[in-house]
Amino acid sequence: MTDILGPVATRRKAVLTPLGAATIDGNSFLGAWQARNADKTIPHCVENIESSGVIQNFRRLADAGPDGPAGAFQGLWFADSDLYKTIEAIGWEQGRSGTDRYDALLAELADLFEKVQLPDGYLDTYVQGTPDAVAFAHPEYAHELYCAGHLMQAAVALHRGSGDERFLAVARRLGDMIVKRFGEDGEPVIDGHPEVETALVELYRETGEEAYLRAAELQVERRGHRTLDPGRFTPAYYQDHLRVREATEAIGHSVRQLYLGAGVTDLYLENGDETLLEAMEKLWDSAFHTKMYITGAHGSRHRDEAYGDPYELPPDRAYAETCASIAAFQWCWRLLLATGKSRYAEEMERTLLNAIAASTSATGTEFFYSNPLQLRTGHNGDDEDSPSERLSWYSCACCPPNLARLLASVHSYAATADDNGLQLHLLTAGTFEGPSVSATVVSAYPWDGDFEITVRGSGELAVRVPSWAVGATASVDTKPAPGDYLRVPVHDGETIRLSLPMKPRLIRADDRVDAVRGCVAVARGPLIFCVEQADLPEGVLVEQLRLDPSAEITEEWASDDVTPLRLHLSGLVKKDQPDLYAPYEAPPAGDTPVSFTAIPYHSWANRGPGAMRVWLPLT
Amino acid sequence: MTDILGPVATRRKAVLTPLGAATIDGNSFLGAWQARNADKTIPHCVENIESSGVIQNFRRLADAGPDGPAGAFQGLWFADSDLYKTIEAIGWEQGRSGTDRYDALLAELADLFEKVQLPDGYLDTYVQGTPDAVAFAHPEYAHELYCAGHLMQAAVALHRGSGDERFLAVARRLGDMIVKRFGEDGEPVIDGHPEVETALVELYRETGEEAYLRAAELQVERRGHRTLDPGRFTPAYYQDHLRVREATEAIGHSVRQLYLGAGVTDLYLENGDETLLEAMEKLWDSAFHTKMYITGAHGSRHRDEAYGDPYELPPDRAYAETCASIAAFQWCWRLLLATGKSRYAEEMERTLLNAIAASTSATGTEFFYSNPLQLRTGHNGDDEDSPSERLSWYSCACCPPNLARLLASVHSYAATADDNGLQLHLLTAGTFEGPSVSATVVSAYPWDGDFEITVRGSGELAVRVPSWAVGATASVDTKPAPGDYLRVPVHDGETIRLSLPMKPRLIRADDRVDAVRGCVAVARGPLIFCVEQADLPEGVLVEQLRLDPSAEITEEWASDDVTPLRLHLSGLVKKDQPDLYAPYEAPPAGDTPVSFTAIPYHSWANRGPGAMRVWLPLT
Repeated sequence: MTDILGPVATRRKAVLTPLGAATIDGNSFLGAWQARNADKTIPHCVENIESSGVIQNFRRLADAGPDGPAGAFQGLWFADSDLYKTIEAIGWEQGRSGTDRYDALLAELADLFEKVQLPDGYLDTYVQGTPDAVAFAHPEYAHELYCAGHLMQAAVALHRGSGDERFLAVARRLGDMIVKRFGEDGEPVIDGHPEVETALVELYRETGEEAYLRAAELQVERRGHRTLDPGRFTPAYYQDHLRVREATEAIGHSVRQLYLGAGVTDLYLENGDETLLEAMEKLWDSAFHTKMYITGAHGSRHRDEAYGDPYELPPDRAYAETCASIAAFQWCWRLLLATGKSRYAEEMERTLLNAIAASTSATGTEFFYSNPLQLRTGHNGDDEDSPSERLSWYSCACCPPNLARLLASVHSYAATADDNGLQLHLLTAGTFEGPSVSATVVSAYPWDGDFEITVRGSGELAVRVPSWAVGATASVDTKPAPGDYLRVPVHDGETIRLSLPMKPRLIRADDRVDAVRGCVAVARGPLIFCVEQADLPEGVLVEQLRLDPSAEITEEWASDDVTPLRLHLSGLVKKDQPDLYAPYEAPPAGDTPVSFTAIPYHSWANRGPGAMRVWLPLT
Repeated sequence: MTDILGPVATRRKAVLTPLGAATIDGNSFLGAWQARNADKTIPHCVENIESSGVIQNFRRLADAGPDGPAGAFQGLWFADSDLYKTIEAIGWEQGRSGTDRYDALLAELADLFEKVQLPDGYLDTYVQGTPDAVAFAHPEYAHELYCAGHLMQAAVALHRGSGDERFLAVARRLGDMIVKRFGEDGEPVIDGHPEVETALVELYRETGEEAYLRAAELQVERRGHRTLDPGRFTPAYYQDHLRVREATEAIGHSVRQLYLGAGVTDLYLENGDETLLEAMEKLWDSAFHTKMYITGAHGSRHRDEAYGDPYELPPDRAYAETCASIAAFQWCWRLLLATGKSRYAEEMERTLLNAIAASTSATGTEFFYSNPLQLRTGHNGDDEDSPSERLSWYSCACCPPNLARLLASVHSYAATADDNGLQLHLLTAGTFEGPSVSATVVSAYPWDGDFEITVRGSGELAVRVPSWAVGATASVDTKPAPGDYLRVPVHDGETIRLSLPMKPRLIRADDRVDAVRGCVAVARGPLIFCVEQADLPEGVLVEQLRLDPSAEITEEWASDDVTPLRLHLSGLVKKDQPDLYAPYEAPPAGDTPVSFTAIPYHSWANRGPGAMRVWLPLT
């Protein structure tokens, strides 16, 4: 049993409340993914955290003799956080399945953490294990509060998942150090990478200790004073360019922007400062209405892993970091709790089923860090930031354990309760138990649009109707309105049926998204599709395809390693032109008709490297 | 008098020879630019080199007491090269105009260089002035041979320009150190940033010392053995991924790639190894036929300042570094000398009149480092790598002095001679003196397409006819063939007339350049045009314009601070759409007719910051 946002505090401003009990059907898309996460991804993370030396970084400090630690620190300076996110995944997984698979590991880690943590509560194996490194000497860079945040969040997950007290005690000592050192009269330090804000709020929720909430407030209020040395970056990179109430444009390093959004919203949920919520909803508009990929990914620039200008959304050089998608999901969740607006749940679903789903291989053990919407024929995949296939691990390994912790807890994001009843946000088969209304959902969504929802208890059942579901029907008097919740009074034992139209559709981007001018994307239900070289006839390249928007799209269902569903499209093969630049009047080189196949974007790159594109030029 | 490639060596393989005497008419486009370079840009560089501490880096070493130098090294670790390029510009300028404006500065610098240079010839103020820095300990990073190359090239320019011997002696001692330390039996070290290759060839040309040519050969042959530690980059970033004869794709850091191309071609020009020329022409195809912007700029990625995949040419995030355009120009020049093919001269002109010309302000004192082909409304210009306007100087100040040295010598690239006569490559008013044929060209090109060429001597006159000049006419029997040289037998006193059609034209990109799908660029003669916000009617944004390709384009001539020529285009204003993503069938928001103005790309951003685009979507 997991409560993703912990016990309700006195000042909580959430209009919706996370559920105490939620289970996703193991046969559903999300359920199978969650099972794969438990069986493959989490063990893979544990293995790689060990083999890449992250745990060793703790052991060498724990075993240090009078001459200091032996050997050298391994990995990037914030590698501790990779371990903490893996522990967080284990915590949620213990809560979900009761697994005892990691008990020995956790016992060793608790020993190590207790040994390595300094008497004042400080814990950071890079700073502690590097000669001449000084705690908090470089907050713009060192990630110490970022790592501290991930440790707190991991301890909270373990405490919620299995009642573990040892990690929570370590986290509290760390939190107490932060309260003391960076409290009201302390040093006005913020971290170059937001994360500790939401973690301090979570630690407050878990312990009831208001000092942590106050520390989170100070972290948020101190942003935007340009106290961080920007070095070769700009203050925006660090989210230190404007106060949080003044910033209206999503900008800078995308994960930092989105984690900060989640942290500020978390703070609002507890302290009820409406000016924070107002600022967050405005900022969200910028991020989600001018800078988001159709897959739900964020951050178009490789340089500085940053948001671009509005509408700067190139599909080929989409950085679209997996962690940014996860952070977007987390921010939306907090805004959903704060407002109950369906748009936040809809964007959670978009990024979860497209950008986030694409970042893990069918095997569960290979990952994309960046998630482009186009891979060209002849792409050079030598750079770790734009490989042609998912990699088993990364030198900057933030994404895989971030996926692990999200998937281990994904059931907790599917539904909420309020005084009226139950709300279903992430549509999936499963069982969701609220205080007044519970529901069991039977569905093959996202492959199929039919839902059979059987209710226990009495009250209001609210089911999110996606904005694309024009023509949805339901077995009730109320007509489902796309982009809103279908709200139905229900009684014990009733079954409600909802049917969403699943006909493939074509989507165009705003004209200002220059990079996909003259193109459409193919979607079906919540899934965005793509064309991959592996499905094309011999001699036809992805780049040569032109889609006929008037041609019928047909579906092919099959048991398949890659996807159960393929879409068949029609169009032309455009012959290559001889010149890079030529007179506009030059005759086209000649086209030939072609039928071709699209697969869900989330399943691409599971058959070896090859070209791919989401946005298809029109005939 | 300047000979851009020095005296002819015994084994020289050039089919064309630089001229001993060339003058560009001061009233012409190029001539006025060259004068502005002399009057404004070079003095501005000298001022900023001084104020940014680059000369001080030498003084602090020269003045160092027994406790070592006082103060700290200033600027980036390769800042010496900014000074060297400025000196090179002065050298060419002395050769061109005989200026004595910099004599005192040069005398001080010669004193400093002689004092700071170590007894073995080593000279690098960063390494010499940084505690614990060791010479050549980090060749992938330290730029020591890169800086050495720029010093040699500067000394060669001064020697050719004014006969200066002091800098040449410093350069020779440095060259001798390289020969000794990295000779056949020495350390097999190459530099992470190519540049020393072409400089060693130049030093060989200037001194006749074959050991420098051999050292250049070793530098070239040692590339691609993956001896450089790639760190966070790939071997391709450093041009160390493949041997120079094996590399067929332009890749990695674009300036490094293009400088290496110039160096290898320079080596071929002297050692005559045909396999080098063959490799260079193949590599050139990749760079110029799949990865070049229509402005002649190279390198589409901000990340790692790198070439992208083939056809990955986004106009908004074009990195298009000024130094890459200059390097492309230099590589083309060497290939032109090696082959006599007009395509190399045509690409020199393209980048010179568009990408390179755009990188300096009308005042001559502000510069673009990156040269995008689109700037969006709402662009955030805080990053030095994508400012909204030209900046006076950069923390990495490689581009301004690179412009200064190119413009001070640009007359030397305009024409060549061979046994048959004279060849005119960069079309411009001026006087060009070959051994058998000399010519005085009268023309207002690139604004006008008419040329009156008066000849002295007898032989063959070859005039390049650009490939866009379909319908060119001449006062001779031979019909001008676009993309080739018009070759005419001439006699003393004759005047030849050539007329190039200057009607504005629309250009489309290869379909594989996804980023500009559905768009055209407007060109007139060799100039690419752009639309800038400053010229648009109130309430119309650059992003809303759609060009009607069938509408007539009219010209407006005026005396103007920005440009003498504006083009008037017709089309529609597209109303903004409400949703980032919407069903393809959604009706358009409504368009209104509009007339709008385009100006030459090279003159944009001279009227304050504002949106701009080269590629215009069609109605």
